[in-house]
Amino acid sequence: MTFEVKILGSNSAVAQHGRHPTSQLVNIHDKYFLVDCGEGTQMRMNDFKVKRFKINHIFISHLHGDHYYGLIGVITTFQLLQRLEPLTIYGPPLLEEIIQLQLKAGGTQLNYPLLFVKTQDNHQELLFSDADVEIHSFPLQHRIPTTGFLFVEKSTQRRINGEKTKGLTLLPKDFIDLKEGRDVTLSDGSFFKNDSLTLPPYPPRRYAFCSDTKFLPELRSIIDGVDLLYHEATFMNDAEKRANDTYHSTTGQAAILAEMAGVKHLIVGHFSSKYIELNFLLEEVRQIFPNSDLAIEGATFKVLR
Amino acid sequence: MTFEVKILGSNSAVAQHGRHPTSQLVNIHDKYFLVDCGEGTQMRMNDFKVKRFKINHIFISHLHGDHYYGLIGVITTFQLLQRLEPLTIYGPPLLEEIIQLQLKAGGTQLNYPLLFVKTQDNHQELLFSDADVEIHSFPLQHRIPTTGFLFVEKSTQRRINGEKTKGLTLLPKDFIDLKEGRDVTLSDGSFFKNDSLTLPPYPPRRYAFCSDTKFLPELRSIIDGVDLLYHEATFMNDAEKRANDTYHSTTGQAAILAEMAGVKHLIVGHFSSKYIELNFLLEEVRQIFPNSDLAIEGATFKVLR
Repeated sequence: MTFEVKILGSNSAVAQHGRHPTSQLVNIHDKYFLVDCGEGTQMRMNDFKVKRFKINHIFISHLHGDHYYGLIGVITTFQLLQRLEPLTIYGPPLLEEIIQLQLKAGGTQLNYPLLFVKTQDNHQELLFSDADVEIHSFPLQHRIPTTGFLFVEKSTQRRINGEKTKGLTLLPKDFIDLKEGRDVTLSDGSFFKNDSLTLPPYPPRRYAFCSDTKFLPELRSIIDGVDLLYHEATFMNDAEKRANDTYHSTTGQAAILAEMAGVKHLIVGHFSSKYIELNFLLEEVRQIFPNSDLAIEGATFKVLR
Repeated sequence: MTFEVKILGSNSAVAQHGRHPTSQLVNIHDKYFLVDCGEGTQMRMNDFKVKRFKINHIFISHLHGDHYYGLIGVITTFQLLQRLEPLTIYGPPLLEEIIQLQLKAGGTQLNYPLLFVKTQDNHQELLFSDADVEIHSFPLQHRIPTTGFLFVEKSTQRRINGEKTKGLTLLPKDFIDLKEGRDVTLSDGSFFKNDSLTLPPYPPRRYAFCSDTKFLPELRSIIDGVDLLYHEATFMNDAEKRANDTYHSTTGQAAILAEMAGVKHLIVGHFSSKYIELNFLLEEVRQIFPNSDLAIEGATFKVLR
């Protein structure tokens, strides 16, 4: 079952050096969630051949342009491409007004339902839940209200223990019963307690997206032990004052948080346009947290079992 | 003195086939005017190394996204790049509300003056005038209020007649007097009527931008004899019904208008994404109006004296 994050854009503020503003595609069990949507995201979807109609939910962290100016274009392009499925947008309260005003100005009546869920930056909140995934927002601290997002795979079925079932004749219904945690009586009359033939479900995989934020050690409890953490690292360590002043983080701060929270893999992004080469940023991150990577556009980060 | 149009984007609706939505840079006497500003225009400015701070006036034809979704990004990028010069936006009334709402949502206080001039689609109007150029809007007919724009070079100074001034001793002040139409008494006491030593000014060059519109023969009087006409040709001739239904024009209609109005050079653009190859469109246009070209991105169309 897929659990992966594809980077569509990773620059801060202005598009520069071939890098584009923030957007990511989270794929969990072949369900697509778009996270942030900077200007030109629909062009990045073209470039990376994203099956855009699989996107039914879009999460916007905050209303700085490099995180949402591309949203209206995605919405109206869906209309031009004759989308019919509902689309739900999760974001700060003013987002709905901005989008509706632009639809009105263009005389656009959407043929598909467009729904808005308002986020707030006071406390954690469950935004989305289905059979496969839960998505929570949590407060960050930036110059305007901003949230991160936590993607949690739902605890899935128990796993058949191949060692223990060797030699037994299992019918399809027995597999289903075992996976769903029930005891079974096989066709030959033999009875088995569920846990004698199964292993516990895989632990649910988790991805935390920490968009623009100052260094927030208190995030530790929320992102504790996640499989994959995206954290902004707009500046290098020598620009810590500028990071503080603008409510951004440095490479070192992102790495320290990953280390403190015991995450498994860190990706950093939202690079300042002042950096042409990014390898120096990566070096600084890895000095503290070795299992780190740059959120380079086009890269896909898979969380394997 | 420069008079040229650079194409930054020429696709309709969705970015496709490496083409981007509408935007053009009009350069008259080294003054830059941006005309329409589809999503990603600021990235096109990067690609084509446009000196963006020379842009002080932006003209938006109408509020369909492929003509203005990139404007907010241009405005906020100017802020990030520490612009101080005023910027004036000319466009439909709702445009100011859309931009101001997005600035408010992002907590953005611009450091430079941002001015709005509302356009209307009822009658021709003089929007801008300085020593070098006049810019007029004129009504088009599309699904929402839409205007075209007419750029008219100001009638400039008289030209010194090299034949007639040969052998005369002209001081710098004599040149100025002659160019500005005054008679002169030279240093040797000889008197000359102005028109005995000068030729009339060059005729002012004109560029007409006809954004999205149905075929409008009555435009003829407005664009009569312009040096350069941009006219949309969203569809080929065999899709005339679709053009009519969507208030767009065909290749043939653009060419007929150019022919009727006696323009000197026609460029067509706003190509439907259904066309991958554009040479067939050009063939259809040139069958009726041979001096035609495609508004290919990156192309610059110069109007020479």
